[in-house]
Amino acid sequence: MSKRAVVLLSGGLDSATVLALAREQGFETFALSFRYGQRHAVELRCAERIATALGAARHVIAEIDLRVFGGSALTADIAVPKDRDAQHIGSGSIPLTYVPARNTIFLSCAIAWAEVLGAADVFIGVNALDYSGYPDCRPEFIEAFERMANLATRAGVEGATRLAIRAPLLALGKADIIRRGRALGVDFGLTSSCYDPAPDGTPCGGCDSCLLRARGFQEAGIADPLLDSGVRA
Amino acid sequence: MSKRAVVLLSGGLDSATVLALAREQGFETFALSFRYGQRHAVELRCAERIATALGAARHVIAEIDLRVFGGSALTADIAVPKDRDAQHIGSGSIPLTYVPARNTIFLSCAIAWAEVLGAADVFIGVNALDYSGYPDCRPEFIEAFERMANLATRAGVEGATRLAIRAPLLALGKADIIRRGRALGVDFGLTSSCYDPAPDGTPCGGCDSCLLRARGFQEAGIADPLLDSGVRA
Repeated sequence: MSKRAVVLLSGGLDSATVLALAREQGFETFALSFRYGQRHAVELRCAERIATALGAARHVIAEIDLRVFGGSALTADIAVPKDRDAQHIGSGSIPLTYVPARNTIFLSCAIAWAEVLGAADVFIGVNALDYSGYPDCRPEFIEAFERMANLATRAGVEGATRLAIRAPLLALGKADIIRRGRALGVDFGLTSSCYDPAPDGTPCGGCDSCLLRARGFQEAGIADPLLDSGVRA
Repeated sequence: MSKRAVVLLSGGLDSATVLALAREQGFETFALSFRYGQRHAVELRCAERIATALGAARHVIAEIDLRVFGGSALTADIAVPKDRDAQHIGSGSIPLTYVPARNTIFLSCAIAWAEVLGAADVFIGVNALDYSGYPDCRPEFIEAFERMANLATRAGVEGATRLAIRAPLLALGKADIIRRGRALGVDFGLTSSCYDPAPDGTPCGGCDSCLLRARGFQEAGIADPLLDSGVRA
């Protein structure tokens, strides 16, 4: 039997690439997504299609309503910033789209499931572009979470399986991730990156996430299958 | 304005005592409970009454269905163990009632809310009796969580508020907690400890949690207001 891994799957291109990477490394993959009160359900539809396309053994969508805590443009009644100067994305202060402690909550659920599945590996698609703005996308956060996780679970008491939090994209830029994903056969046409898409899933083209995606495809010299031209200003 | 604190409130006597302690220390308290797929809703009714009785500024019940992960007698279709020899409670192996990573998930939500509220303190009622059996009730877990939490949130990047995870009952036994709670005016008649109560809230009297509660009241020499005699074998 192959080793099991829990893979956090948002429906975006980063986590799709991570799911493909985990499969390439020989893991039987258990994909985990969240209905957390995000503004749109497009990304969950994408996550389902990606999990199927990349052969996940199971895909679970956990319900956790983060709206009760407020504080983010992604879950509360705060407008998603649009058409910011690309130089300001991922530099300096924490963006309005930061959801307080979101990765901590998602990883906590992932270790719960990993423990039940007997999986020793949890994959998350945080990367270099994210971590310049979001505190919970930095390598020191991932390391501290892994340490805590090994005290929080049976592993810490019974010494059975040591949990590893794997963030294979941490040091990569968006263009590198796109090249990597394509090499692994990820269909980026199934992914969604937009913070504020139309109900049919059409990206807005102006939020930070759309701008980062466009820049990434442009730098990688690859056409984005979600768009007509493949390169968006 | 007084300092704010988030207090995890289960409806049991430990967390009720912690809520009273936080109030005594001058905090404006924000109580947080979870509808996580537990077998019964008795403890949430209790949590509501306790939050009101102890003057919490707000009480939020967050929805997060841990049943999707399975693995515990408290959320899955596994029988709650009854009438175990008291010597075996809290000794040796992890009980069937352990919910994988539950305190990690609850604390993660608490730091999310704390960040939004501008609170620097998060209180949790883990204690000495729990931590001999549950990995996520041990002091080394609380310390590792606090360290991680300060890297996970704005505090870690902007250096604003350093988060403190406070577990004031950690070194106390059940009898000490009961004495402490009574001195602080906690009405233990509002609390529920049973893992498997009747629909009207009547405790089963045989699960580990009922047995620990009975032993605690007995050792404290105090009558349990939930019971007729106040001392249950």
